Amino acid sequence: MAIDFWFAIGSTYTYFPVMRLDAVEAQTGIRFNWRPFNLRRVLVSMNSVPYADKPAKLAYMWRDIERRAKGFGLTVSMPPPYMIDDLVRANRIALLGLKEGWGKAYIRASYRRCFAEGQDAGAEPNFSESLREAGQNPKEALTRADAPEIAEALERDTDEAFSLGLFGAPNFVVGKEIFWGHDRLDDAIAWHRQAS
Amino acid sequence: MAIDFWFAIGSTYTYFPVMRLDAVEAQTGIRFNWRPFNLRRVLVSMNSVPYADKPAKLAYMWRDIERRAKGFGLTVSMPPPYMIDDLVRANRIALLGLKEGWGKAYIRASYRRCFAEGQDAGAEPNFSESLREAGQNPKEALTRADAPEIAEALERDTDEAFSLGLFGAPNFVVGKEIFWGHDRLDDAIAWHRQAS
Repeated sequence: MAIDFWFAIGSTYTYFPVMRLDAVEAQTGIRFNWRPFNLRRVLVSMNSVPYADKPAKLAYMWRDIERRAKGFGLTVSMPPPYMIDDLVRANRIALLGLKEGWGKAYIRASYRRCFAEGQDAGAEPNFSESLREAGQNPKEALTRADAPEIAEALERDTDEAFSLGLFGAPNFVVGKEIFWGHDRLDDAIAWHRQAS
Repeated sequence: MAIDFWFAIGSTYTYFPVMRLDAVEAQTGIRFNWRPFNLRRVLVSMNSVPYADKPAKLAYMWRDIERRAKGFGLTVSMPPPYMIDDLVRANRIALLGLKEGWGKAYIRASYRRCFAEGQDAGAEPNFSESLREAGQNPKEALTRADAPEIAEALERDTDEAFSLGLFGAPNFVVGKEIFWGHDRLDDAIAWHRQAS
């Protein structure tokens, strides 16, 4: 059984598992199944604004991410773009890429450009440059990502996220057990081991 | 230099440091300075409702606390009372008790009764029974806790919490560095060691 890694490009703390999960997979032998969803639809339905209208909490989040990135040896240029443009499109590209086998490379490139280079993950040039980095022809991949069936697949996956009880990102789901936040990755791994 | 432990009775995740900090203090040799504040005033000023209007997130929180309590060997009877009555009074009693030397015993009794026995921490009989457990005459202690100077002291401490940039609880503050959440206790300890 894999651990389902439910995430959305646009979630700030998702930076950490995106950059770390391949190494965790190698160390633990546990497979992570990457599942993008439309987090914005979930937050809007909950009338939830986690940070954008809360200056003290927002300032803390950036400081916390900066401190923790240092601990993980990850580069951050503070603050990265936030409340970024077309997140749904970024997550459609991610979903397409995961179906076609280049998704993780795209998602990592997208996050690295956003967090280390200040490039909005929901706009050009991030879309095209991250696609190129993942070995894709940007124009062709964007045409496929903009097709109705990909939009519909992302919304179906988002329905599944709702039915699981997800309300934020990132999440690690083991069976029906939700572990929310990168901070719960170790707990999810322990749960998976005990359940396997 | 001590680590300032800023908290408020009524904060759910504060259950863990309240029950664990004395042991952590003994293990690490680091002193924790307990600082109650009026968290509700902070949340109202931010227009923040962390859980009460978000059923999926609320359900997750209880499950998360239940799982983690088990890991810490703490008893929980789920779900404990939430959005409880007179939290400001509970925190005034806590502040009085910390000034008079019986505060931690009161706070621990209050949390244990709330989380393990389902007794609202912001109402009777929790107030009086927790006071008795802390070696106090409930009627006399409540009279002192209800005095204007204690209310004013709690609001002054809450002003200080605002000026530090606090927006939730629990927090561990090392100098000007905020670590929010019980999950950041180890990071706060590491920061303290490096800064000492």
